[in-house]
Amino acid sequence: MPSAAGPIVLLTCGDPAGIGPEVVVKAWASTPRHTGARLRVVGDAALLNAVLADRAGLPRLGMRCIDADDGRESAAHTLLVIEPAERASAGIVTGRATASGGAAAAAAVLTAAALVRSGRAHALVTAPLHKEALHAAGFDVPGHTELLARECGRAEADVSMMLWLPAVDGPGGLGVVHVTLHEPLARAVARMTTGGIEQAGLRLAGLLERLLGRRPRVAVAALNPHGGESGLFGDEESRLVAPAVRGLAASGVDVCGPLPADTLFLRASRGEFDGVVALYHDQGHIPLKLLGMHRAVNITLGLPFVRTSVAHGTAFDIVGSGAADPASMLAAIDAAVRLVEAGWPVTAAAASAAARGHR
Amino acid sequence: MPSAAGPIVLLTCGDPAGIGPEVVVKAWASTPRHTGARLRVVGDAALLNAVLADRAGLPRLGMRCIDADDGRESAAHTLLVIEPAERASAGIVTGRATASGGAAAAAAVLTAAALVRSGRAHALVTAPLHKEALHAAGFDVPGHTELLARECGRAEADVSMMLWLPAVDGPGGLGVVHVTLHEPLARAVARMTTGGIEQAGLRLAGLLERLLGRRPRVAVAALNPHGGESGLFGDEESRLVAPAVRGLAASGVDVCGPLPADTLFLRASRGEFDGVVALYHDQGHIPLKLLGMHRAVNITLGLPFVRTSVAHGTAFDIVGSGAADPASMLAAIDAAVRLVEAGWPVTAAAASAAARGHR
Repeated sequence: MPSAAGPIVLLTCGDPAGIGPEVVVKAWASTPRHTGARLRVVGDAALLNAVLADRAGLPRLGMRCIDADDGRESAAHTLLVIEPAERASAGIVTGRATASGGAAAAAAVLTAAALVRSGRAHALVTAPLHKEALHAAGFDVPGHTELLARECGRAEADVSMMLWLPAVDGPGGLGVVHVTLHEPLARAVARMTTGGIEQAGLRLAGLLERLLGRRPRVAVAALNPHGGESGLFGDEESRLVAPAVRGLAASGVDVCGPLPADTLFLRASRGEFDGVVALYHDQGHIPLKLLGMHRAVNITLGLPFVRTSVAHGTAFDIVGSGAADPASMLAAIDAAVRLVEAGWPVTAAAASAAARGHR
Repeated sequence: MPSAAGPIVLLTCGDPAGIGPEVVVKAWASTPRHTGARLRVVGDAALLNAVLADRAGLPRLGMRCIDADDGRESAAHTLLVIEPAERASAGIVTGRATASGGAAAAAAVLTAAALVRSGRAHALVTAPLHKEALHAAGFDVPGHTELLARECGRAEADVSMMLWLPAVDGPGGLGVVHVTLHEPLARAVARMTTGGIEQAGLRLAGLLERLLGRRPRVAVAALNPHGGESGLFGDEESRLVAPAVRGLAASGVDVCGPLPADTLFLRASRGEFDGVVALYHDQGHIPLKLLGMHRAVNITLGLPFVRTSVAHGTAFDIVGSGAADPASMLAAIDAAVRLVEAGWPVTAAAASAAARGHR
């Protein structure tokens, strides 16, 4: 793998019945000029050709199958495709979840992950899977992240994600990690721990430092209205959140909190913070959706390699209409390249040392 | 009170040490041309003159004290002031909470409320109080709403508020009521009831119908991530929220839900809904702050008269700098005029009948 050239970034199209192939092709046509990355699509070329044939509004690109060890540059007008060993079966239905779609998506991402793990590529950028299709194909995981965790021998609990919303102008943006995510709100509140908040903050700070190339400013959200109003509206702030903030500060993180969540996200949206630790799903997702989730990126923490993903789903309702927006895919490619160039992921020990300023 | 002319709308300046007097004066200079309302400021004229003297960026207006029964039109260049019987004491310190400031604010609002209740004015629009100043002056209530509820012999529980965010262009906007507000999140979740959600929805729909002059489209937020994902992430949606939505629909409200809160507010921000029932403080306040709380209005439900308020606070940190934005005050005046002209408040029975389409 020639190292003088740009990083080799593998793109997977997710479920071929969804908008994944469209955002990959649209992004391909405009990205390589900007990032300098050597892009490859991992997937079944015949299948890709077939599903793209009847979709509106796509750039016309050639397609060339290459070997995984081919170090050539990518260009905007020809898709370079690395095919999985396994052929995709027929039976993809545009805009519908099928076992064939799930199987094709899984084959592509597993092939791509193996290439990155073996050092033959630098990063993996994924388009959306469909959970039901994946299940129908016999993969008993909710999505990419868990599938990749399993492939890498990591426990699901050790793998998490940061949502990254790049600034519209300039290199900055807003990163959000969630302390709790897919569980009932009552349980998320009841089970919240200082350790969980602190760990999320460390992961966030470590990732942002690599992405931004400087020490990030991090804020931790409060749980209760007005941040608990000095204990009047709840004690989780003083009991759980404040100790985590002190712990983060002691680890060298530039951190403040707990801050009332409503004003915190307004301040973050104005550039006052680079990252926010959100305590529960909607606390982070309500503002992110309003601020522009369509261009957000999902960055996986806890894998032994760089993996980013679009933050949207398969969007079966708009497949083929030409409406699919490649903004999130473009941002995911950009973030992957930046992280590879910054030497991420680092080990937990190194991240902790870096946070303390000992390089 | 001449009824052919516009409604008589009383403005109070809130705590004179805060930005209240500034937003009142700025709004005065531009409003009367638009609303046709006959505006009056209720407050101590000498005090107003004194606090406004050293503040930057204000329009130069004359000031004229008038009798409460004077029906004259208002004009942009002269403040018409109705003075409370009680003289304000000295001791106001710009940007600081004092008993004198709290007393002056309370005297103005109590005088104004009495005028509206006696039918000598049509509506009350208030600038922000400071809670500590109010306490220091001997009023043991957290703010205007509770003070007015007590004055009108209403229980605090019967009085609530809708936050109204007017559209930047056009007559529409977004109204939000909260089922729970100033309590710990864990308790808000534990104590949520179908009846509480349904009552909030009825209040919202009744108020919006008057404000918009048509049947509003209302959405009720879900509590859990992804709206509970069919029970995987919590059962409050099926157990508490869905029955309330069915109850609202049975009462004739154009309603849908429970909808996942993150996408709901994005959809609402794009004009798909006129009103949202939020289940807890931050669920409504995070999106409202991002969407433009600085121009939002607080409309009180449950009082026997129209009362609107700015949705911001005294902003002691920017007093006198010229930075105070009158957008919220202007919107509060506009909403008050619209509600008076629409014959609001109606009794609960009439609102319920209207919701059922029996006028």
